[in-house]
Amino acid sequence: MQTLTALVFDDFETLDLFGPIEIFGSLPEYFRIQFASIKGGIVYNHHGVALQTIALAELEYQTHILLVVGGKGTRPLINDSHFLQTLAMLADSADWVLSVCTGSALLAKAGILKNKQATSNKRAWQWVTEQATEVHWVKQARWVVDGKFYTSSGVSAGMDMALGFIADRQGRDSAQEVADYIEYRWQEDSQLDDF
Amino acid sequence: MQTLTALVFDDFETLDLFGPIEIFGSLPEYFRIQFASIKGGIVYNHHGVALQTIALAELEYQTHILLVVGGKGTRPLINDSHFLQTLAMLADSADWVLSVCTGSALLAKAGILKNKQATSNKRAWQWVTEQATEVHWVKQARWVVDGKFYTSSGVSAGMDMALGFIADRQGRDSAQEVADYIEYRWQEDSQLDDF
Repeated sequence: MQTLTALVFDDFETLDLFGPIEIFGSLPEYFRIQFASIKGGIVYNHHGVALQTIALAELEYQTHILLVVGGKGTRPLINDSHFLQTLAMLADSADWVLSVCTGSALLAKAGILKNKQATSNKRAWQWVTEQATEVHWVKQARWVVDGKFYTSSGVSAGMDMALGFIADRQGRDSAQEVADYIEYRWQEDSQLDDF
Repeated sequence: MQTLTALVFDDFETLDLFGPIEIFGSLPEYFRIQFASIKGGIVYNHHGVALQTIALAELEYQTHILLVVGGKGTRPLINDSHFLQTLAMLADSADWVLSVCTGSALLAKAGILKNKQATSNKRAWQWVTEQATEVHWVKQARWVVDGKFYTSSGVSAGMDMALGFIADRQGRDSAQEVADYIEYRWQEDSQLDDF
């Protein structure tokens, strides 16, 4: 059983989080999910979502897979050194680090993606890539894998990446089964990018 | 400004809800979102999501668009006459009623889809269609529109339907803009169904 910790914050992007959660949540025999934020309690976003989270310091299970989402809430966090240091520690100790959309800007600014290949949301490309120049940013990609890091493009790309991660770990059939279960046309080619 | 009320319950399916929410939430100039449950408070699901909701009786805004999601939690609700009566009243007074996945089983059992065309999740097809025989169930469809009712197939189909609803109200360009914004390949043809 692997524990996926989703790190959220105020004004996270709804589907960045819940797209991958639907996918990992569809395989409860492999993955356990916990929702975390720095201080715990309820996290709010601009779609009216109010999500209960556990404080990072109080997590029940050790994190194997860290999921870092994006959204408008990344803008203040990019200047929050406490948040970035905490993120760096979490990412260091995780076996796998996955980001969706502008979540990779946080990883980059925290110094975690140094000399790594990574991608991000195309709408926020300039802002994201300015956060760290020593990252090998890949503009044309649905998602990018480099070592333990999986970074995806904007919002819905996180679902394709999550299925890609599952294909890499549990096998392609397992990923396709989840896609079929949620009646989702999985874009399996990580390099194909329409956006 | 139209108010969308998402009716949720324990063990709702994560993406049934948050796929459409991402899409409606991307147009805050048109749509306001409120999350409701019968009794209010926190609603939990099998993916570890704990979502704060408002009691139906305490909703701040009148509902223009009712969103009814599916998931394992529909199984006990199908025999809950108080829930079904409440759902019928809500649906009657709403301008539009949208369901995702097995949410249409709840609408059907509540008697709201009588003589209407509707669809649902293909994995739960037999169970859903048994809930009401006087519904014209359409098996091959991504989503079905009949009057004020939009019913979609399983899980991710709710996103295509939400974009279809927006195309019907705000125009196709508006829907395409949202799809582009979330880097989502919208399946625009409601009759095309791979599942």
